[in-house]
Amino acid sequence: MEDIGQHSAGMDIFANISPIDHRYRQAEAQLWQELSECLSERALIHYQLRVEIAYVRALARRGLLSQQSAEILADAARRVTPEEVYAEEARTQHNIRALVNAVRRHLEGRAPAAGADTAAGPVAPAAGAEALRFLHLGLTSMDVVDTANALRYKDAFDRVVWPRWRRLVESVANLAERESDTPAIGRTHGQYAVPITFGWSLAEYVQRLGERLLKAQAAAHDLRGKIAGAVGCYNAICLLVPDPDQLEEEVLADLGIRPSPVSTQIVAPEYVADLGHALVSGLGVMANLADDLRHLQRSEIAEVREAFGAQQVGSSTMPHKRNPWNSEHVKSLWKAFMPRMFTVYADQISEHQRDLTNSASARFFPELFFAVASAADRLRAVVEGLQVDREAMLRHLREAAPSVVAEPLYILLAQAGHPNAHEAVRRLTLAAESARAQPGVAGTPPTADPAPGAVLAQALCDPDAAPWLARLTPHQREVLEDVLHYRGRAAEKTRRIVARWREALGL
Amino acid sequence: MEDIGQHSAGMDIFANISPIDHRYRQAEAQLWQELSECLSERALIHYQLRVEIAYVRALARRGLLSQQSAEILADAARRVTPEEVYAEEARTQHNIRALVNAVRRHLEGRAPAAGADTAAGPVAPAAGAEALRFLHLGLTSMDVVDTANALRYKDAFDRVVWPRWRRLVESVANLAERESDTPAIGRTHGQYAVPITFGWSLAEYVQRLGERLLKAQAAAHDLRGKIAGAVGCYNAICLLVPDPDQLEEEVLADLGIRPSPVSTQIVAPEYVADLGHALVSGLGVMANLADDLRHLQRSEIAEVREAFGAQQVGSSTMPHKRNPWNSEHVKSLWKAFMPRMFTVYADQISEHQRDLTNSASARFFPELFFAVASAADRLRAVVEGLQVDREAMLRHLREAAPSVVAEPLYILLAQAGHPNAHEAVRRLTLAAESARAQPGVAGTPPTADPAPGAVLAQALCDPDAAPWLARLTPHQREVLEDVLHYRGRAAEKTRRIVARWREALGL
Amino acid sequence: MEDIGQHSAGMDIFANISPIDHRYRQAEAQLWQELSECLSERALIHYQLRVEIAYVRALARRGLLSQQSAEILADAARRVTPEEVYAEEARTQHNIRALVNAVRRHLEGRAPAAGADTAAGPVAPAAGAEALRFLHLGLTSMDVVDTANALRYKDAFDRVVWPRWRRLVESVANLAERESDTPAIGRTHGQYAVPITFGWSLAEYVQRLGERLLKAQAAAHDLRGKIAGAVGCYNAICLLVPDPDQLEEEVLADLGIRPSPVSTQIVAPEYVADLGHALVSGLGVMANLADDLRHLQRSEIAEVREAFGAQQVGSSTMPHKRNPWNSEHVKSLWKAFMPRMFTVYADQISEHQRDLTNSASARFFPELFFAVASAADRLRAVVEGLQVDREAMLRHLREAAPSVVAEPLYILLAQAGHPNAHEAVRRLTLAAESARAQPGVAGTPPTADPAPGAVLAQALCDPDAAPWLARLTPHQREVLEDVLHYRGRAAEKTRRIVARWREALGL
Amino acid sequence: MEDIGQHSAGMDIFANISPIDHRYRQAEAQLWQELSECLSERALIHYQLRVEIAYVRALARRGLLSQQSAEILADAARRVTPEEVYAEEARTQHNIRALVNAVRRHLEGRAPAAGADTAAGPVAPAAGAEALRFLHLGLTSMDVVDTANALRYKDAFDRVVWPRWRRLVESVANLAERESDTPAIGRTHGQYAVPITFGWSLAEYVQRLGERLLKAQAAAHDLRGKIAGAVGCYNAICLLVPDPDQLEEEVLADLGIRPSPVSTQIVAPEYVADLGHALVSGLGVMANLADDLRHLQRSEIAEVREAFGAQQVGSSTMPHKRNPWNSEHVKSLWKAFMPRMFTVYADQISEHQRDLTNSASARFFPELFFAVASAADRLRAVVEGLQVDREAMLRHLREAAPSVVAEPLYILLAQAGHPNAHEAVRRLTLAAESARAQPGVAGTPPTADPAPGAVLAQALCDPDAAPWLARLTPHQREVLEDVLHYRGRAAEKTRRIVARWREALGL
Repeated sequence: MEDIGQHSAGMDIFANISPIDHRYRQAEAQLWQELSECLSERALIHYQLRVEIAYVRALARRGLLSQQSAEILADAARRVTPEEVYAEEARTQHNIRALVNAVRRHLEGRAPAAGADTAAGPVAPAAGAEALRFLHLGLTSMDVVDTANALRYKDAFDRVVWPRWRRLVESVANLAERESDTPAIGRTHGQYAVPITFGWSLAEYVQRLGERLLKAQAAAHDLRGKIAGAVGCYNAICLLVPDPDQLEEEVLADLGIRPSPVSTQIVAPEYVADLGHALVSGLGVMANLADDLRHLQRSEIAEVREAFGAQQVGSSTMPHKRNPWNSEHVKSLWKAFMPRMFTVYADQISEHQRDLTNSASARFFPELFFAVASAADRLRAVVEGLQVDREAMLRHLREAAPSVVAEPLYILLAQAGHPNAHEAVRRLTLAAESARAQPGVAGTPPTADPAPGAVLAQALCDPDAAPWLARLTPHQREVLEDVLHYRGRAAEKTRRIVARWREALGL
Repeated sequence: MEDIGQHSAGMDIFANISPIDHRYRQAEAQLWQELSECLSERALIHYQLRVEIAYVRALARRGLLSQQSAEILADAARRVTPEEVYAEEARTQHNIRALVNAVRRHLEGRAPAAGADTAAGPVAPAAGAEALRFLHLGLTSMDVVDTANALRYKDAFDRVVWPRWRRLVESVANLAERESDTPAIGRTHGQYAVPITFGWSLAEYVQRLGERLLKAQAAAHDLRGKIAGAVGCYNAICLLVPDPDQLEEEVLADLGIRPSPVSTQIVAPEYVADLGHALVSGLGVMANLADDLRHLQRSEIAEVREAFGAQQVGSSTMPHKRNPWNSEHVKSLWKAFMPRMFTVYADQISEHQRDLTNSASARFFPELFFAVASAADRLRAVVEGLQVDREAMLRHLREAAPSVVAEPLYILLAQAGHPNAHEAVRRLTLAAESARAQPGVAGTPPTADPAPGAVLAQALCDPDAAPWLARLTPHQREVLEDVLHYRGRAAEKTRRIVARWREALGL
Repeated sequence: MEDIGQHSAGMDIFANISPIDHRYRQAEAQLWQELSECLSERALIHYQLRVEIAYVRALARRGLLSQQSAEILADAARRVTPEEVYAEEARTQHNIRALVNAVRRHLEGRAPAAGADTAAGPVAPAAGAEALRFLHLGLTSMDVVDTANALRYKDAFDRVVWPRWRRLVESVANLAERESDTPAIGRTHGQYAVPITFGWSLAEYVQRLGERLLKAQAAAHDLRGKIAGAVGCYNAICLLVPDPDQLEEEVLADLGIRPSPVSTQIVAPEYVADLGHALVSGLGVMANLADDLRHLQRSEIAEVREAFGAQQVGSSTMPHKRNPWNSEHVKSLWKAFMPRMFTVYADQISEHQRDLTNSASARFFPELFFAVASAADRLRAVVEGLQVDREAMLRHLREAAPSVVAEPLYILLAQAGHPNAHEAVRRLTLAAESARAQPGVAGTPPTADPAPGAVLAQALCDPDAAPWLARLTPHQREVLEDVLHYRGRAAEKTRRIVARWREALGL
Repeated sequence: MEDIGQHSAGMDIFANISPIDHRYRQAEAQLWQELSECLSERALIHYQLRVEIAYVRALARRGLLSQQSAEILADAARRVTPEEVYAEEARTQHNIRALVNAVRRHLEGRAPAAGADTAAGPVAPAAGAEALRFLHLGLTSMDVVDTANALRYKDAFDRVVWPRWRRLVESVANLAERESDTPAIGRTHGQYAVPITFGWSLAEYVQRLGERLLKAQAAAHDLRGKIAGAVGCYNAICLLVPDPDQLEEEVLADLGIRPSPVSTQIVAPEYVADLGHALVSGLGVMANLADDLRHLQRSEIAEVREAFGAQQVGSSTMPHKRNPWNSEHVKSLWKAFMPRMFTVYADQISEHQRDLTNSASARFFPELFFAVASAADRLRAVVEGLQVDREAMLRHLREAAPSVVAEPLYILLAQAGHPNAHEAVRRLTLAAESARAQPGVAGTPPTADPAPGAVLAQALCDPDAAPWLARLTPHQREVLEDVLHYRGRAAEKTRRIVARWREALGL
């Protein structure tokens, strides 16, 4: 490992421990970059400074300091770098006090000499001093930390997660619509059930993904901040202004959010918990779709297939492999990130006006945005490039026909007046099966007798069933003779759902 | 263990394996009974039959069978017992087909001779036969199971959870209001922070518990049913009626709920997941309050105490113990039930038009209602019987005064014009501390110097601080001289929050 | 719901809330009964009394009281019923003090008149009084509770879980051996990989289930008790005997377990956590096997099938359905119970010499035994009744042959001297594929070209590959011509694993 | 955010998303560096190449290629950089094939021109070509990935986790020994229980941390590798050597580990799960100790205090604050990482010969090493710098005395012959309490009556108790008169435990 340190820029990446910051940073560079701009430590410091500035400006509007001083402060804050803050924190061991001190250094002209900075020179002493006195005055660290977190989580959702998730809904909707009429066999318990269309099996996800997306957006937009001091009841701010809760609302409105109706040292944790739930349950729906696509790609089913690059290698030893690895990846992200809700739930509990036992745990919350955005991207790519084998779908539907007919047969017999149709059809099915059965260790595969009319044939010559069958209308007989006619409202409802979500999301 | 079986009625309880059905059934009999009426297997069967009947009635309204037949069926369904259903299931190994067969037996007069039944005799053959033909016709089991679950979960919430949780909010609100002015010391990190009132520390919970309650109610009332057949696209129902989705809406409206906008064989799982989240996060708030009350009962703090029965034993070996066991129990319920959200999240994933891998897991969901209702009851009893030691609160506040004054001192110095007040006060505090410090292995306890004015005294003779102090107004000095004046908006905001929730919940 | 209460014995079951105590009590009556004898509240009380008696006997051996008094006490303890204990607890609100008082009542002849009791009459006053003085003297409740839990968990494992799990290993081993030579296609990513035997796919589970079983047994046998008093350092017992830790060892040895090397009020929680981990990870292996069996039963694969009763109903609406519901159930138990490890981990944390925040949570731990034993039973039944379709397995293997040959072709080409065999074969595979491809929306299904020699044929006329192929030995060519020869050591290793576990578990 | 990109080296850190790779990389640089050397992507690639080389060397020993060729390969492998591998993977989308291709480039002299590389020039064509043919031949990616993971996890444990955890045990042992005689009050339910020594409260953690450490070591040393091919039964390797399982053992022994007794495409997942459990449950013990230290630092208790730097800032607004933030951090790490066991449990399930749904989830497993090592470091620093206030401990013990005496009084009365001592003392305690009680809203604080002999005094003039008290020996009376004599075996057992772990860990 002696060579660690040789490669300057790249080194940092490959030396990182979190896969987010090495593997996925490489593989999903654009996503990583966008998230970094909201969620990195660098970004965090900028968001925190925005809160500090918004507060000082509100104090200036109330006349506690001059507007000019507030703007001088804003200017200094913009020049603060994370490097300075961390250097200061190494000394004070307090992150927000370090932030304040870093601004102070810029105002006092003591910041490390960078080109622009030196040019600017130290600010006018008087205004700078006034600015410094009011910087963070009356706030507690968590006013800044929790408010900044709300802001960056909201931005991360709006800028990074929302557009990707929305495009995922769009892609699934497009495919659902295109395949709204494609006959396929429905599967329950992994067994052939009754006919659907392939589009119908996707419409489910248009609806569920769309609903979760709106739920997540609502939660992201309902994140709250606080400007309420050390224990939430404005002790210090009361010394500065007569209307601390109006001030709180005003500062937060300026930043684009609302205050928590109650705070201790921290914002009530349920707003973040609701967002966590929406993200994690959304990831669950993506994992469900990924699982369905994985299984439809099984060699024996092979109704769909992920696109595969010409240069791509499926296996290091089995050159023929074409694995559904993107779908697998989405499921895997769910396994990695869903359990993190328990951290969120555990962080609901904070003793008295707060303990700090969320100091490390809350720092990992932003990784949820990565998980959801990455899963959405990956799944969208799968859906957009999905190869659909309509013939395979039809073949499976036809394979299923001999037994599928059991349901409409039972319904129509009952409707026609048969006194115990379910039992009658159950017996007919067993009879049709044993007619096909062959000797051997095991049962016979479902394709052994491809005659789609096996059960129906059995029924037509069954003394119990035949009289009732005779009463069916031609249209009813059609359903029994070709299961393609037995697809319910699959196509119509698919199109209705697609239309609903196109409208809801402006697709 | 040879005597198991001797005691008839009691035996069943003490032989049970789940603590819900032995220990808590005894200890919380009324709660258990109410939950049993919604959530037991007996109740489940009744709810499922309600769905079957509502469906047949809708078919009757459309003329597929006579209204009389539908009512004959309803009548038979009312007489079905779980014992019959289970006996039938032992044969068919299918629970809903067993249900249907049990109704059939009552209609055919073959049900086991019970007084009322024999009296009624078998129903008129024709109407009975017609009823039987349409019973469950076109439905899949999960139409009945999922819809019945939505109904009983909604009932369990409305009838059992809501009133208890609401009473909990009421009790906390009452106590918060009564103690809205009671001076107390705020605590962050378990350390004295700045003054609050005891009511303020409860107002937090009024707000958080109230919000979660409304969230849970919204989720409970948004549970959905389905009448959409084997794979959700109405294949079978289409053979009976031309408007299957209208029929679905109508049947469900009759039962008091709405359809899932999309179903496969099952209702989209997110509605139950949202309820799970609301319940579990509500339980988290209860656990947080319980933790606070536990700690306030620590021997060294002893600001509050759970009521204690005259006959009650605290410890089997330490006769003097008075343990906060109800608060502990609430925390423990959270530890037991919060992780079950993992099951709920895992059950979001069901392959294709469903797999059955939620067969056992979903059956444990109802236990969440027990957990939340029991925690609410227990916590309410703690809050209602809470002994509050206002003198201890005041004593701790006065103990904290010497150091607490640091915050207002810093704020006022800065406001008065001191250029670096935070650092100045940090130094003054250390100086005041070292003045009190005594030799020994460790630091000196905070009560060593009870003089509330230590830091202030230090400041008044500090050449750096004194000039700025001289500029303070009398009112500002008051705050520094007696921390009781430094309680921010604790009392006002407490009363505002209490009023808000009184109105919101009609308390 | 008016009829609740009518059916005496049955009522209790159907009114229960936990599915363990209604549904599974019915469906798995023998298992439920056996577990109840270790884990019910009735059983718990008996186990706790065993601890109390073992302690008093040890005191008697040291001469603090007469052996006769100790036996009188043992006799009285045997007559205590849970009903009495609960009645007493309703008064004292302390469960162990209630237990002690219940024994007292029997000794004093004040117990409720039951036949046997009255006959016995009150015991001789002197011996009874002496016995009473020493009952529980020096113990804390948790000495009794934690020790009793260790005993009953050990018994539940040894008597209920171990035999079922062992029989499961046996069944899987039998099937693995029987099918050790059965050719099948291996699957990775749900895609055809290279050949295995069906037995090989089961040998994996023989090994993993066997290992976990031994791990669970080791953990169950390493559960610990304590006889160490209120805070673990024998304060009270020191007043009675000079060698409290020897006494602790002796009492526990008498009961068949060892002491925790350190206790506070409670046994160190890691022993139970280790058992929890072994059970949960064992359940995970069962769920994995269940998943494999579920997927092998998919309609399109249909290589195996769960046995199906002649009367059994697969679907309430689709009379043809044969669902893998037992395998699904096992997976579902895993989803329900795996998350409970979170509770176990959370219960590791207990403040100072203990808090009681495990009061409710630890009471649910016994349900884990149900989950594992039930899953083992269910899975064993599936395996024992499994219908194996060897022809389907062979058919899939042959379907896979054209592409499967890629791996040995690459290996043999490289070995023969081809300089870049992996890349060469990857290209040959793509060529063979595009030769089969047909126009259409999607790719062509894998069965389109059933010629097993497609890739090989391509290779034989490929100028790059052919020369190297010419160098292969006849045996090497054989592997390429029939993939049945390419099964590695599947059969041998299967038999070796089966033999190893037969020996290890004495099967 | 326009300035992202300006600062070259630092930028990468502050742009990272994972707190491990920005915040903790800064704050715990040494730990981060050591972990990076085992767990980074750079390290992973080196470990994977070690596996490839070990395999080729084993083939060379069997004569399939020359030893010289194998060493040429080893040489080329050492020159591979992660940058090259990732560039290749971007093309092939397969990480292990990319690795192989990167080595190929070095052998063929096509690697990007770096100084040393160009100097070396391309290797002799013949040997290089031979080497290339056997590189990875017969292996599947997961042979390399899983084996490399086992190796680096073992190294990460041995090199990074073990020494830190061991030092933690040492520090706690040292403190426990030093404080083995320090009188303190035991606490159960947060209430004063009976006396202990402070050392005793730490001995618990010496034992529990020591046991978990050995458990984790055993699990780390029991991690397994595999050299068994695509589905675990050596299909490809069989074509090269006649003894594939011996080869597997040999290659792995060369690397220092053993094979999994059964593999599919992957190693049986339980070995990693056992390590996960040991790490997570060890972290749980650390969190428990951290919680205890947090609470002992509460302002009202203040028996211990974390060391505090002279420059350190406790609060950005409350200059007087001294928060137990390191202890809080340890608890928080537990909340963040404990839930990840569910990912580990979920990854036990892999369909058939494997699915890839652990592709992302398993990549986060290494972060557990960070969590445990960081928590151990942090906690050790707390323990080593802990300020212990023995006077405060004694003061609390004396405060507790009046009620604490209840237990020995009850024991001694019973031993002396009192027929119902527990009840007698319970009543005496209530009487002593009501004697102290004062009017007010709440009960009276425990310090109201500091007379240590209150209950004893009450007993001495109680007609029921006094006669029995008269029988006590002087030594017995001593215990009642001064609770310092009622510390059980706390000191002796503390020293015994410390000695045991000094020996076990060679401290």
